[in-house]
Amino acid sequence: MTTSVPLSRVGDEARAALFTDARTTYAFADTPVDDATLTDIWELARWAPTAANLQPLRVLYIRTPEGKARLLPHLDEGNRPKSASAPAVAVLAVDHRFHEHIPHILPIKPELKEHFAADATQRDGITSFNGPLQAGYFILAVRACGLAAGPMAGFDAAGIDKEFFQDGDWHSVLVVNIGHPAGPPEFDRMPRLAHEDAVAWA
Amino acid sequence: MTTSVPLSRVGDEARAALFTDARTTYAFADTPVDDATLTDIWELARWAPTAANLQPLRVLYIRTPEGKARLLPHLDEGNRPKSASAPAVAVLAVDHRFHEHIPHILPIKPELKEHFAADATQRDGITSFNGPLQAGYFILAVRACGLAAGPMAGFDAAGIDKEFFQDGDWHSVLVVNIGHPAGPPEFDRMPRLAHEDAVAWA
Repeated sequence: MTTSVPLSRVGDEARAALFTDARTTYAFADTPVDDATLTDIWELARWAPTAANLQPLRVLYIRTPEGKARLLPHLDEGNRPKSASAPAVAVLAVDHRFHEHIPHILPIKPELKEHFAADATQRDGITSFNGPLQAGYFILAVRACGLAAGPMAGFDAAGIDKEFFQDGDWHSVLVVNIGHPAGPPEFDRMPRLAHEDAVAWA
Repeated sequence: MTTSVPLSRVGDEARAALFTDARTTYAFADTPVDDATLTDIWELARWAPTAANLQPLRVLYIRTPEGKARLLPHLDEGNRPKSASAPAVAVLAVDHRFHEHIPHILPIKPELKEHFAADATQRDGITSFNGPLQAGYFILAVRACGLAAGPMAGFDAAGIDKEFFQDGDWHSVLVVNIGHPAGPPEFDRMPRLAHEDAVAWA
């Protein structure tokens, strides 16, 4: 037998807050969320793993009335009241110039900076997989900070990019409303696939 | 003021196990992981949100010597000893026929089954974003179950698909070694981006 390093199973309360009891939120209370808490979400999410530690995800937090006014026209109409009610909205984006950080984040292979700089197709491969991967971490980090998340795919990405990311490097991939629920969920949670339908064994 | 529903912040021990102290694992102890624990990982991960609740991620758990022998040739050579040492390996895949489940998982819009059946490009849009999103949930669910995860992108996806997914519906996107670490990490954790480098405000 080799020696194993003991890890701790996460307790039932945390499992419920993160996975089994958490609900996507569509209407938020006007309880504010301060910038320190929003920063704390990033401080958690950033530690989860990415390919070659490349971390292409970026976050734009919108919480001022001016920022909201710029955002809302680019959301699908049915999504506007959701983001309007949220004290903070995170626009999750991928940075197509993530390779600029390689000397810092991948010090064992700094030469990969030039490799990725010369190959936009390979950069797209990194952002298209690791962006949503990190979005998953981010949503669970919102919940770990005691807040509700309302992720939405219905928005005009090119419109948001033009409005907020004018240097052309960041590309929006998901909008996540963040705050405290205004009330209990309005409908039952929809079914998830049982392991019989989603898990195979070999 | 509207009334808000209180949520619980996840405690420091759970935050450490999931995010701030967890490490990608490359060498595993021979401590076994039973099928009930592997099923439990899915029972957690499946509750986190996906676009329209479509849940395209699937999991193939490989833990028999026969299964390992079929898997290893399709991994990059440097990754083979990692998976060989892991008591369980999860091949994460996306199901290009996820729409078959729509009457069950999206009962408010059963007609979307035919919509997606007729549009492979739209199906690709769902799987390419929500597959990695759910992979992020899965990796954190492994950790929530008290196990270490070793995700790897270095493998021959077409080779794995041909070996294990012969009906052509499932497409492998990530391989995750699962188990108990054989020892402490062999090198320091690589840097993550500070919020100054990854977070913007509006």
